[in-house]
Amino acid sequence: MTLRRLSEQEIQAELDTVPGWKIADGKLHREFQFSDFVQAFGFMSRAALLAERMNHHPEWFNVYGTVRIDLTSHDCQGLSTRDFKLARELSALVDG
Amino acid sequence: MTLRRLSEQEIQAELDTVPGWKIADGKLHREFQFSDFVQAFGFMSRAALLAERMNHHPEWFNVYGTVRIDLTSHDCQGLSTRDFKLARELSALVDG
Amino acid sequence: MTLRRLSEQEIQAELDTVPGWKIADGKLHREFQFSDFVQAFGFMSRAALLAERMNHHPEWFNVYGTVRIDLTSHDCQGLSTRDFKLARELSALVDG
Amino acid sequence: MTLRRLSEQEIQAELDTVPGWKIADGKLHREFQFSDFVQAFGFMSRAALLAERMNHHPEWFNVYGTVRIDLTSHDCQGLSTRDFKLARELSALVDG
Repeated sequence: MTLRRLSEQEIQAELDTVPGWKIADGKLHREFQFSDFVQAFGFMSRAALLAERMNHHPEWFNVYGTVRIDLTSHDCQGLSTRDFKLARELSALVDG
Repeated sequence: MTLRRLSEQEIQAELDTVPGWKIADGKLHREFQFSDFVQAFGFMSRAALLAERMNHHPEWFNVYGTVRIDLTSHDCQGLSTRDFKLARELSALVDG
Repeated sequence: MTLRRLSEQEIQAELDTVPGWKIADGKLHREFQFSDFVQAFGFMSRAALLAERMNHHPEWFNVYGTVRIDLTSHDCQGLSTRDFKLARELSALVDG
Repeated sequence: MTLRRLSEQEIQAELDTVPGWKIADGKLHREFQFSDFVQAFGFMSRAALLAERMNHHPEWFNVYGTVRIDLTSHDCQGLSTRDFKLARELSALVDG
């Protein structure tokens, strides 16, 4: 599948669909806070499954209960609909 | 740590502290249902961390959204307080 | 994708491609042994990612370093090429 | 357990026991490379279990097959023997 790089206007429209996410350094970014490492890693395990299923993997950082995620599409050197799709799925894991 | 095998009376008292769990084949048993494999495995990942921390590992079975757990203490050839402690921690993961 | 149920003859031919696996109760079965729970669960985490990517989930059991896996295809009420594909991928994780 | 901050001399001696690790920004650092995300996350799952068991959690970053780990001991605002113990256990997962 060829990924198309979204325009600034498209990115702004997509951002409205993913509360809590913002653009940082050109990437789709969100920080998640959990009560402890067990909860944080439980989230990461579910996120890993979603990412592998989409074949779209995050850049992510964890320390204890904090998980920071950055999404970008290397294939189009920018953001694609795939980034926002994964962001919506990740949000659904925690926002219920 | 030496584990002491709980008496039938003690087991009944402990069972009152872990709703959803029952004794089956002499083991402390509960079946968990999740909406899909991602949720089930997310639970298993958190459960694995708790189990490793306690150095007390479950017998468990999974298929798709179903996770069945059996706890027993090999050291005392029966049930110990450790089984009920792990059961309480596992329940807390899903019962909130 | 419609899954076709393999014939007995096809199953025997496929079995030759997955050393260590056998048919048990009509399912494709293998038992894996690891040195401890950490190694066993590390395998399970990788297996979970492969399964989710294929959207083909195992029935599996774990206790400490033992992992028993049964594969079957509910859609065709038997074994399909998908079971053998997942078996080959799981074997590759441990057989190197 | 009170953690004691290691001296520069002690750190240099400990570093000899953990090939591949170095000091970066005052933290014990190593980058691991795996063939793909499945292998990288399988490592992370095992590492998470070790970390939770030690109650000593890494700062770590992952993208696809890359895992970067930074260890430090907040309690002593520096490096302790615990950081090197976890580093040795993490190395053992991959170095065999």
